[in-house]
Amino acid sequence: MVGVAGPHDDDAAEVLYASLTDSVRRLVDATIRSQADFDGVASAKAKIDAAADELSSSVIPGSFGVQLDASGNPRAWGNAVIGLRNALAPPLVVHRESDGRVWAEVTLGAAYEGPPGHVHGGICALLLDHVLGATAHKPGRPAVTGTLTLRYESGTRLGPVRAEAHVDRIAGVKTYAVGHLSTADGITVRAEAVFIHPRTA
Amino acid sequence: MVGVAGPHDDDAAEVLYASLTDSVRRLVDATIRSQADFDGVASAKAKIDAAADELSSSVIPGSFGVQLDASGNPRAWGNAVIGLRNALAPPLVVHRESDGRVWAEVTLGAAYEGPPGHVHGGICALLLDHVLGATAHKPGRPAVTGTLTLRYESGTRLGPVRAEAHVDRIAGVKTYAVGHLSTADGITVRAEAVFIHPRTA
Repeated sequence: MVGVAGPHDDDAAEVLYASLTDSVRRLVDATIRSQADFDGVASAKAKIDAAADELSSSVIPGSFGVQLDASGNPRAWGNAVIGLRNALAPPLVVHRESDGRVWAEVTLGAAYEGPPGHVHGGICALLLDHVLGATAHKPGRPAVTGTLTLRYESGTRLGPVRAEAHVDRIAGVKTYAVGHLSTADGITVRAEAVFIHPRTA
Repeated sequence: MVGVAGPHDDDAAEVLYASLTDSVRRLVDATIRSQADFDGVASAKAKIDAAADELSSSVIPGSFGVQLDASGNPRAWGNAVIGLRNALAPPLVVHRESDGRVWAEVTLGAAYEGPPGHVHGGICALLLDHVLGATAHKPGRPAVTGTLTLRYESGTRLGPVRAEAHVDRIAGVKTYAVGHLSTADGITVRAEAVFIHPRTA
């Protein structure tokens, strides 16, 4: 890790990696939509390979996992949905209301496409799994998905999307959550899920 | 598009973009796992920005959608699961057996992480949505997801993963599909789904 010696360095690392990953997100989008000619693509690829070589001079083995910052707060920077350093993640910023509701708003571009002009049904599932799960997560007491059921009511257009969820009920180690995805067109996907707090957690 | 004038150019474009996107996938992984110092990260970012500028000199508006190659075959190169030009896509290569079974094998690295060392539950949903959906898709007759239900039986470790599905039954415009995800640990997630052929398709 770059500079985890203190809170100040933590902030600097966060800004640095957020900026790097935003650049990679823009590159992912350009890779899909580029109409550059053969030489332009070859030249871009050479730069990308050089950048990857530079970043790969020393790497964390395996995957990022969850690391603690200097203040002991967990960082899931590699997470596929919320990861600050994961260019696959939009990334989602999850908001928690005092009444337990959880929501996130994000703009989904070309990289999240399934049917032309629309968000891939599985990406809708990915976002809803995460946001519904966030209702069950407690600090130091993670929850894993038990079941997830999605009802697709209409296509979700690429562009601004909102995901929201709340706890329906809690029974022992199980949290029952419900939620939905919506766009300017209204609700597009409804979800319900059961999350389980592993007894070993 | 680069060279869509004929089959030969189509092949060249496919090789070119596959190579470019593989480089971006490696970069996404390095961005998550890099332990390069501040100067190394800043230098890599400058190269990435230059590459994105180069690719962005001319871009397809919006998203890739589905385009036809010179032989009239559809190309979903931007698709979030199978897209040749989408660095978010592993990409999945979907195999179809003569008896209707559909399967895909893929190795999932750091970019697909949820719980430490494990595939994000929503990524499992993304892959299963696509592979179950592939049982319902017919050339020129696409299917959209109606409902998708996932039962998570155990954590899916990062690494080699197999997804498979088959049609359980067909009723009018609805195809009922079932399938599962498995690793060396056995079956980790089971799925069932209803796919609908839009009457307008």
